[in-house]
Amino acid sequence: MTAQSLIERRFNVLGRHSPLFYEKPLQLVRGEGVWVWDADGKRYLDAYNNVPHVGHCHPRVVEALRRQAGILNSHTRYLDETVIDYAEHLLSTFHPTLQRVFLTCTGSESNELALRIARETTGHMGVIATDFAYHGNTAAVSQISSVFTPASKRGPYVRYVPVIDPYRQRNGRRDEQLADFYIQQLQQAIDDLARNGVKLAAVLFCTAFSSEGLPDIPKTYFPKVAAAVHAAGGLVIADEVQAGFGRFGSHMWGHARHDMVPDIVTMGKPMGNGHPLAGVVTTAALMETFTSQNMYFNTFGGNEVSAAVGHAVLNVLRDENLLANALTVGEYVLTGMRRLQQKYPIIGDVRGQGMFFAVEIDDAARTKKIVNRMRERGVLISRIGPHDNILKIRPPMVFTKDNADVLLNTLDSVLSELA
Amino acid sequence: MTAQSLIERRFNVLGRHSPLFYEKPLQLVRGEGVWVWDADGKRYLDAYNNVPHVGHCHPRVVEALRRQAGILNSHTRYLDETVIDYAEHLLSTFHPTLQRVFLTCTGSESNELALRIARETTGHMGVIATDFAYHGNTAAVSQISSVFTPASKRGPYVRYVPVIDPYRQRNGRRDEQLADFYIQQLQQAIDDLARNGVKLAAVLFCTAFSSEGLPDIPKTYFPKVAAAVHAAGGLVIADEVQAGFGRFGSHMWGHARHDMVPDIVTMGKPMGNGHPLAGVVTTAALMETFTSQNMYFNTFGGNEVSAAVGHAVLNVLRDENLLANALTVGEYVLTGMRRLQQKYPIIGDVRGQGMFFAVEIDDAARTKKIVNRMRERGVLISRIGPHDNILKIRPPMVFTKDNADVLLNTLDSVLSELA
Repeated sequence: MTAQSLIERRFNVLGRHSPLFYEKPLQLVRGEGVWVWDADGKRYLDAYNNVPHVGHCHPRVVEALRRQAGILNSHTRYLDETVIDYAEHLLSTFHPTLQRVFLTCTGSESNELALRIARETTGHMGVIATDFAYHGNTAAVSQISSVFTPASKRGPYVRYVPVIDPYRQRNGRRDEQLADFYIQQLQQAIDDLARNGVKLAAVLFCTAFSSEGLPDIPKTYFPKVAAAVHAAGGLVIADEVQAGFGRFGSHMWGHARHDMVPDIVTMGKPMGNGHPLAGVVTTAALMETFTSQNMYFNTFGGNEVSAAVGHAVLNVLRDENLLANALTVGEYVLTGMRRLQQKYPIIGDVRGQGMFFAVEIDDAARTKKIVNRMRERGVLISRIGPHDNILKIRPPMVFTKDNADVLLNTLDSVLSELA
Repeated sequence: MTAQSLIERRFNVLGRHSPLFYEKPLQLVRGEGVWVWDADGKRYLDAYNNVPHVGHCHPRVVEALRRQAGILNSHTRYLDETVIDYAEHLLSTFHPTLQRVFLTCTGSESNELALRIARETTGHMGVIATDFAYHGNTAAVSQISSVFTPASKRGPYVRYVPVIDPYRQRNGRRDEQLADFYIQQLQQAIDDLARNGVKLAAVLFCTAFSSEGLPDIPKTYFPKVAAAVHAAGGLVIADEVQAGFGRFGSHMWGHARHDMVPDIVTMGKPMGNGHPLAGVVTTAALMETFTSQNMYFNTFGGNEVSAAVGHAVLNVLRDENLLANALTVGEYVLTGMRRLQQKYPIIGDVRGQGMFFAVEIDDAARTKKIVNRMRERGVLISRIGPHDNILKIRPPMVFTKDNADVLLNTLDSVLSELA
């Protein structure tokens, strides 16, 4: 089966618009740790995928899945200790006020549920997101996923605030001033909703602004967001689908890195290392208010297999010290990237922490070329940002310094050809 | 760990309103085929669960999961033959006009996507469901899930039509007249939307009206639904989450049983035998129109493991002749239930086909008692319907005549005590 005839077969069942990576799509057949192999046996360093959070096919996660799948896979309408053990472990990683969890299957389901909770508990309808966000694929959530949804489709209850972009908008401002500059824009959105008779239910932000380009976020920004939102009677929803589970090394959760306690936290992608597992964490009071008025049940959410897999991911993160690894190796990558920045003026900015990096290339066409050449050279990365010019580098948490050298050397070589 | 302290631990993490079956909740620890075991080692005949469609922990499904989980679990942004093979097999079970599939993770995601497709391709907003339906837990879908959503929350674009109930509403009408009686009510809902300036996007019905109580559906009803909906410029969405994958024995899909070709089909629960796998099947034209204007991607949907599991379920259904088994054993169960109906006047009606049965008990309190006593005697069933008086019996497809005897004898014994 050639790649071309496979693409034709794919078009005939999944359609022509189902997204595929790279100019020349990649057919993967195997994965292990930070490595994946294509159908020709060629090996690639995976410096992109955050879903296989603790590495492709991690033996302990696979073993937990295999074991539980042979014992029982039902649902939470029966009592089950597996899911309770898991929920207790998961909640122990949060601020003490965040005591309850809903287990779902996808980040979209989590953000959808978070919006329902916010709207039903506040009695308000207004929601604010950024103007280059992606939070999922349901109707309510796609209204706030501005990256794919034109303003004309956002409906009367949604407002977008501009992407935080200190790289372009600092203009000599100190961090505190910069935070205030962005908070003013948030306040304007709240005021604009109010002028139209819409009260604020929630602000929903990715705590790393991942799709927005991973900007350096001023230190006081998120606490000020929470203050402004609460003053308006709304709730703060922290989307941790990309930032969570220790991705940034210093903290388990993106909101903790920013000294903010949200009212609702949503999570997904890395939670099951590829198994469809996601969740919503909130306070006991908000869960009680919502669920006493709304029956919420998720057939697959928190089934015994999903719980066993999710628990294995938490245990691996802890036992293999993967947050510390992310911080150390991440610093090494950043140092290397800054060295490349000195060498190649095309690199405008280098940002990131832990296992998440953004490299601004001051030219969208060249950014695309870099991503595709890296793939040809055996390193998988992608691109993001409103200007489509940011290299998105977000490897599994087991990435080593040796892996980092491969990434840096390959990027060096690709950039040298473009220079 | 006693059940009581497990319940307390559960309340502390999942909350007090997360639904649990039975007056005395059941702690399951193992499943195999039609059998499950509780923490005390007691065995129960599972005559309720449709998620383990081909039986709890079916060896071929578990093996497919175990095998693929050790090889690769990524997503459909890479080319992959596993998902294409599966999609081709799945689509081969549909009417030839239904040529495309979106793979999702849950029935809620599927119904949510179906509503988005219907609304965006028709440009209309109106949706009609029944007044005792359950289609999922997202905001848009819960608006049409009337069983848990009061009319006050349904919003301006939704109308409910009364549950089809030939058992109570036949009044001497022949089938054709009965179909027209219900179609008139559908037409009134369409007209009421129009009077309020809302055009019809879709009618979304479970093709067995499962939550509604599994009524006997007049033969011409569904084709007439399609005609009325299309005349109003709307689309027919067939929710096959409960009725699909051969549950009724005679056909793979509920809509085929009723000689109707829907525009969009949604599916979920049994699709992955417990693995979070669901989908939306539609025409090439509707997929093209929707996806050329909306980016749809589902991170976990159609990943290699989900595809391998889904494919194994289809293969087991075929290789073990489970549709034929459902039809034969189903007829045996129905005959036995009708015998019990002669014996116990409390049984008002016996309905069903294949592996799905509804037994009307003319008293809601006694219905609840029967369900709980059956559980004490080692047989799991549940109850449904607007009057909460219908025994819901919906075993895995591998249910045998011997299993049926256990079900019938236990029910006989429980009923004899209540009589």
